[in-house]
Amino acid sequence: MPTDPTTSLPVHRLKDGSLTREDAVVIVEEPLEIIVDGISYVSIMRTPGDDIALAAGFCLAEGLVDRAEDLGSIQACELEDANQVSVIRAGDHTPPEARRRAPVASSCGLCGRDMIDDLLQRLPRIQTDARVATADLLALGDRLQEAQQLFRPTGAAHAAALFDAELEFLSVAEDIGRYTALDKAVGRLLLAGRLAQARVAVLSGRCSFEMVQKVARAGIPIVASVSAPTALAIDCAKRAGITLVGFLRRETMTIYAGEGRIADLQ
Amino acid sequence: MPTDPTTSLPVHRLKDGSLTREDAVVIVEEPLEIIVDGISYVSIMRTPGDDIALAAGFCLAEGLVDRAEDLGSIQACELEDANQVSVIRAGDHTPPEARRRAPVASSCGLCGRDMIDDLLQRLPRIQTDARVATADLLALGDRLQEAQQLFRPTGAAHAAALFDAELEFLSVAEDIGRYTALDKAVGRLLLAGRLAQARVAVLSGRCSFEMVQKVARAGIPIVASVSAPTALAIDCAKRAGITLVGFLRRETMTIYAGEGRIADLQ
Repeated sequence: MPTDPTTSLPVHRLKDGSLTREDAVVIVEEPLEIIVDGISYVSIMRTPGDDIALAAGFCLAEGLVDRAEDLGSIQACELEDANQVSVIRAGDHTPPEARRRAPVASSCGLCGRDMIDDLLQRLPRIQTDARVATADLLALGDRLQEAQQLFRPTGAAHAAALFDAELEFLSVAEDIGRYTALDKAVGRLLLAGRLAQARVAVLSGRCSFEMVQKVARAGIPIVASVSAPTALAIDCAKRAGITLVGFLRRETMTIYAGEGRIADLQ
Repeated sequence: MPTDPTTSLPVHRLKDGSLTREDAVVIVEEPLEIIVDGISYVSIMRTPGDDIALAAGFCLAEGLVDRAEDLGSIQACELEDANQVSVIRAGDHTPPEARRRAPVASSCGLCGRDMIDDLLQRLPRIQTDARVATADLLALGDRLQEAQQLFRPTGAAHAAALFDAELEFLSVAEDIGRYTALDKAVGRLLLAGRLAQARVAVLSGRCSFEMVQKVARAGIPIVASVSAPTALAIDCAKRAGITLVGFLRRETMTIYAGEGRIADLQ
């Protein structure tokens, strides 16, 4: 099984009207099984690498842990060919139920939207004096782009980068998935005991409900994406007190929520 | 709850160095619960619209049904504010287990990759004399772009379009998700009894393992994406006998699998 993030494969490429045989760099996508308290909690598709950080960030986002100390032990399976990380939580816990694909209604009459409303209500509300100027956000967008090492050869990787209050770089991760890239970037800081320093998350991809939920669970007050947010992501950001910026591109951006933290608007 | 695919929201937009207050068109993302034989099978995030087609296409991709006749009844919940579609399969079936987020190992010692290998082995092998010329694929890429009505105002929608052996347009769908766009396009043809006519799927987004799996389950021999495939998607396409093209952009493309169907290479 490939454990490198990329592999090289022979392809035919059409360019200038003719087909030639070449080798192409392709991103690797493999499942990672996350086992929590001995229960197979979920398997997610991801690009190999930083699996421990991914599992840590994922458990935080899911509400399985609230801080690094809750991760009693976290280790990758040592068997060759095994794509598994096992998390044993500290303290007493009821073993979790296996995670399903998305919020699922518990019975007829409830629909997924009730679950979403419930999730929205349980989101932490982020309160901080953090401010950021649009010029600084544009600069962070450029820094994300510079960090996208995996994207350049493959054209297929998403990236998430985290910055502190002085807009110093804290952590970056790239992955085939938007969600897994963010989980990895957050998980690394969680494991290093530095997540509380994170003030701004900069994302390469679209900003869905689940992306904002992950940002909220990580306690990050400002999120800026190169691409578009969804209506539910904006709703989620407003309720969680998160500043949400989209279309962070060249000299433009759109501020969808939490404009009180944009220094230019004061 | 919004049931339109887009909504309009007030934002601040940075352009030419100044921030102005405007209204922005934003894509809607809401959960749809799919109930199969009375069991809450999954809730997926999607853009409202074409929910019956989405549920039909999803059930085909999951292997819950193999053909339109297997969908004994399929209907949306009539309660206001309910985002549910209920499928009752024809014939006798054991009720399905609720779908989890991704293939999940059944016990310790197995890892998700074993499940993937198992899925790969169970994929139908597509055999057909279908051929396509690169010039025709480039033209289909242009036609996908023309069809992207939802993408233009929102910058956030994926699209999937299906074409027949004469490269005539059969079906197109747009959605916040790549997977749900493809399920909708496939589901519409399934319900209309015309899925067997589909020869080429053209996709706006990256081509992961699960996208190729859906194409294989729909029996479509040729898939071309505007973006990159993953290594596992290429592996999946080779095993299923699918022609996989990526980076279908302007005058270029890359052929990753099944080049025997590319007429120029004969």
